[in-house]
Amino acid sequence: MNIFQPLLVTAMLALPFGAFARETSDSAAIVAVMEKSAADWNRGDLDAFATCYKNSPDILFIGHTISRGYAQMLAEYRKHYASREQMGQLGFSQLQVQPLDAHFATVTGHFHLERERNGGGNSDGYFLLVFEKTVDGWKIVRDDSTQISASEK
Amino acid sequence: MNIFQPLLVTAMLALPFGAFARETSDSAAIVAVMEKSAADWNRGDLDAFATCYKNSPDILFIGHTISRGYAQMLAEYRKHYASREQMGQLGFSQLQVQPLDAHFATVTGHFHLERERNGGGNSDGYFLLVFEKTVDGWKIVRDDSTQISASEK
Repeated sequence: MNIFQPLLVTAMLALPFGAFARETSDSAAIVAVMEKSAADWNRGDLDAFATCYKNSPDILFIGHTISRGYAQMLAEYRKHYASREQMGQLGFSQLQVQPLDAHFATVTGHFHLERERNGGGNSDGYFLLVFEKTVDGWKIVRDDSTQISASEK
Repeated sequence: MNIFQPLLVTAMLALPFGAFARETSDSAAIVAVMEKSAADWNRGDLDAFATCYKNSPDILFIGHTISRGYAQMLAEYRKHYASREQMGQLGFSQLQVQPLDAHFATVTGHFHLERERNGGGNSDGYFLLVFEKTVDGWKIVRDDSTQISASEK
C-alpha cells in the first residue's frame, strides 16, 4: 500500500530493527481500524463505527464544537447523521500514520462523504486523530475533524 | 487559574502523588508555551511565535490543507498572515491540557483573532495540538486548527 512508503523509508533510516518492525505492525493495525470504521459507517452501523473510539469519559472530539467523552461523541454523531442518507458513503485518503511512541500515534488525512442532495450533499475535510494502544487494540482518544466549507475548497 | 481545576481534580483521584505532581507541572509548562506564543504573535513576531513548534521535518500542520515540516508550517503562516493587520490580536479560551504520558500531551481549545476589516475581520475556531516534551521544552508536533465558517457560528 502506497501510504506506508514514506513511513517505511523514514523508519528504516532512523530505527533499530525491533522498533522498525513494531512501528510497521502498529501502523498496519491502525490503518485496519480506520478501514473497519469506514466499512461500519458505510453499512449504516453507527454503534459498530463508534468502537474505533476508546470507551472513556476523557476522549475529546472536535466537530462543530468540543465534546468530551464517548457518550457525548456518539450523541453528536447521532444528531448530525440521523439517517442513512445523511451518513452517505465515507472514504479516507492522504492517510499518514505517525507513531509518537510505543503507546500513541497520530493519523492525519482527508475524508470524503459521498451523499445525495437529500442527505446534505457531498462533504469533505481534514482530520487529526490521536490513537492509543489499549488492551482492546488501537483506539481513537482525540479527534479533530473539520468540514471544509465550500468557499475554501 | 480556572482552566487547571478539572485537570487537578481528575489527577488527584486517579494518580499516585509523583505522577500527579509531574502532570500538574507539565500542564503549567504547556500553558506557559501557549501564553508566550500568543504574546509573540500579538507583537507581530512570527519567527518567535513559530518556536512553539518543534523544529522538525516531521511536524504536521493542518489549516486549509496538510503541511509537513517546520519550514512549510512557517511558509503557510507567512502566506496567510503577511501583515500586522492580518495577524491581528490572538487569544485562546476553553484550554484543556490532557497528558497522554510523560512525553506527550494534547491541548484543545478555541482561538479568537481580533482583526479590523482591512486585516480580514475577526476569525474564530477550534484546535487540537499534540505537544512533545523535547530537550528544548514542550513543543507542538501536530496542529489541527480550523476556522469556523460564518455559517457554522
